[in-house]
Amino acid sequence: MEPVAIRWDGTLRVLDQTLLPAEERWIELAGAEDAAAAIRRLAVRGAPLIGIVAAYGLAVELARGTGAPPGTESLVFATGLMRRRRGVRAAGSPAAVLPLAEAAALLRGARPTAVNLAWAVDRVERAALAGGAAGARAEAEAIHAEEDAASAAIARHGADLLAGARTILTHCNTGALAAGGRGTAFAVLAELAERGPLHVLACETRPLLQGARLTAWELRRAGIVHELLVDGAAAGLIRRGEIDAVIVGCDRVAANGDVANKVGTYAHALAARAAGIPFVVAGPTSSIDPALADGDLIEIEERGAGEVLTAGGVTIAVPGTSVRNPAFDVTPAELVSALVTERGVAAPPGREAIAALLAAK
Amino acid sequence: MEPVAIRWDGTLRVLDQTLLPAEERWIELAGAEDAAAAIRRLAVRGAPLIGIVAAYGLAVELARGTGAPPGTESLVFATGLMRRRRGVRAAGSPAAVLPLAEAAALLRGARPTAVNLAWAVDRVERAALAGGAAGARAEAEAIHAEEDAASAAIARHGADLLAGARTILTHCNTGALAAGGRGTAFAVLAELAERGPLHVLACETRPLLQGARLTAWELRRAGIVHELLVDGAAAGLIRRGEIDAVIVGCDRVAANGDVANKVGTYAHALAARAAGIPFVVAGPTSSIDPALADGDLIEIEERGAGEVLTAGGVTIAVPGTSVRNPAFDVTPAELVSALVTERGVAAPPGREAIAALLAAK
Repeated sequence: MEPVAIRWDGTLRVLDQTLLPAEERWIELAGAEDAAAAIRRLAVRGAPLIGIVAAYGLAVELARGTGAPPGTESLVFATGLMRRRRGVRAAGSPAAVLPLAEAAALLRGARPTAVNLAWAVDRVERAALAGGAAGARAEAEAIHAEEDAASAAIARHGADLLAGARTILTHCNTGALAAGGRGTAFAVLAELAERGPLHVLACETRPLLQGARLTAWELRRAGIVHELLVDGAAAGLIRRGEIDAVIVGCDRVAANGDVANKVGTYAHALAARAAGIPFVVAGPTSSIDPALADGDLIEIEERGAGEVLTAGGVTIAVPGTSVRNPAFDVTPAELVSALVTERGVAAPPGREAIAALLAAK
Repeated sequence: MEPVAIRWDGTLRVLDQTLLPAEERWIELAGAEDAAAAIRRLAVRGAPLIGIVAAYGLAVELARGTGAPPGTESLVFATGLMRRRRGVRAAGSPAAVLPLAEAAALLRGARPTAVNLAWAVDRVERAALAGGAAGARAEAEAIHAEEDAASAAIARHGADLLAGARTILTHCNTGALAAGGRGTAFAVLAELAERGPLHVLACETRPLLQGARLTAWELRRAGIVHELLVDGAAAGLIRRGEIDAVIVGCDRVAANGDVANKVGTYAHALAARAAGIPFVVAGPTSSIDPALADGDLIEIEERGAGEVLTAGGVTIAVPGTSVRNPAFDVTPAELVSALVTERGVAAPPGREAIAALLAAK
């Protein structure tokens, strides 16, 4: 399969998703700082994908320490596209190699909500302590391969579960731009479209429009029939009986089955419950955080006002208006019909069903 | 009070709301065609306000027929800002005066969902049949005065009902840009802010951003503390206990209390019910349609794809993507805590409570 979001051959390159769909520009991430910055500014996003990229970012940082040539992407970043944590690095003078613990902490702290990030960084850090740069690289590659395989399994389980659904609503982006393989919820949609007729309704997903920019782009590439709608239109269409099921991804699932996902998800879950249609969450078990008792303990990232005051780079609101901008919301487990993972389906995803999934392997 | 959205001194002028907040441009509506076109392209919007403007538009059309000088605004419209129903009128050659029934039908058909439009046009048409152009003008002025008075009464009833609420969420725009006086739901907020501390959370209201453009503008003018959020963020904040009540306007209320309002409203109502906070609808009795048994019979306007594929005039989605764009949704009466009208409050707004409101006077 042609890589959609990430390329790895010892050098780490990612598609800059902030520029999609207007431009497909690949950027090189030459170490942990580049990877953390790309995750922070959403050049790479989607819980499983930022885990994969953080894993590679840490491995690349360690490779730099062993004398492997640093990448050149820092030149792009130095042109002013982004503020660097450590100030602007002069072109041609790569930053000093970060110590392992510092690089890992930098990556873990890039975004707070997705648990995959810490999970992947922890794994690579442990591998590095045991096996050095080579061990770190092997672990990052293992994580990537596991997430690719998880996507394929999620697609099968989810398509079995939703067999018969002809019109499915989704939110945000959960395809290859967000996860390994063909993604999570998107992989289920792609599998269903291969098995029979399917019509996807994609919410635009304000403020950053991952649905309008990324999911619409992936749906078109996949040849799946689809329509775009504003987020607020979903509940009304569900109420009118126009939608058979809702499927979304997840950024973090608590031990009791509460789901943190892109802001706007919870309202779709309420509407699905009111209409009696399935509300399905798809994600790899790496998105489950067994240490978190329930969803109210999940830290919800609040992002800047600029995302709400603008769209597509232009101001769309009264300038200077104060803003609330939570990037995620929490859907309580009781509204989730099923959690689809690579290890099977928890339907509904209660505390015991999730523990059973995590114990399976 | 300085006019915010409409000026009438025998000549009809409206603020072109499509240009807000960047520009405050007043345009003259020289007859029924101009008024219908302004309503259709949302230069004037808000259910009560389009009733008022349609009433004046019909009166102006009739005045033209009696030899009063036509307005000059048609020159602006002829420059290409809008397509005219009858083709582009050459500058300096005003369109023929429309017969009463034709002008009334044109105005009634400008938008399908708000019932105020037909209600106001019917009233002016009847007055014209009885009293000619002078009768029509007097009736339009009466409608305007009644809606101004309704706003003041709604503000009092609503503020009494929500006394104690400190943080209130609203959707779309319901101020003087949408209705007579200080508006409907917005008038309640303004009254509450005069009575004590108030914090308003305003949803941006995709696709046309009436919240980000118009409500934020009115809140700032009124000096009310506020924050803007994307529509999808409302439900999560309600779930987190950050909001004391939700108040919205209405485009049409059915006889059983079902409410058609700006798309996105229904999801807020679901979230309010799940959190146990009041979900209040405010509007003049002219927004009640006793002929409609329930909300499922309300015609929901579907608008063009361009509104969803763009924001602030720039493309924000994959170009050419198919779109669903319902402009309204229906909130079932059982989710509405109270309907606040100028004649009092129906709480909850069942069939009998609404009939009682309509019978009062």
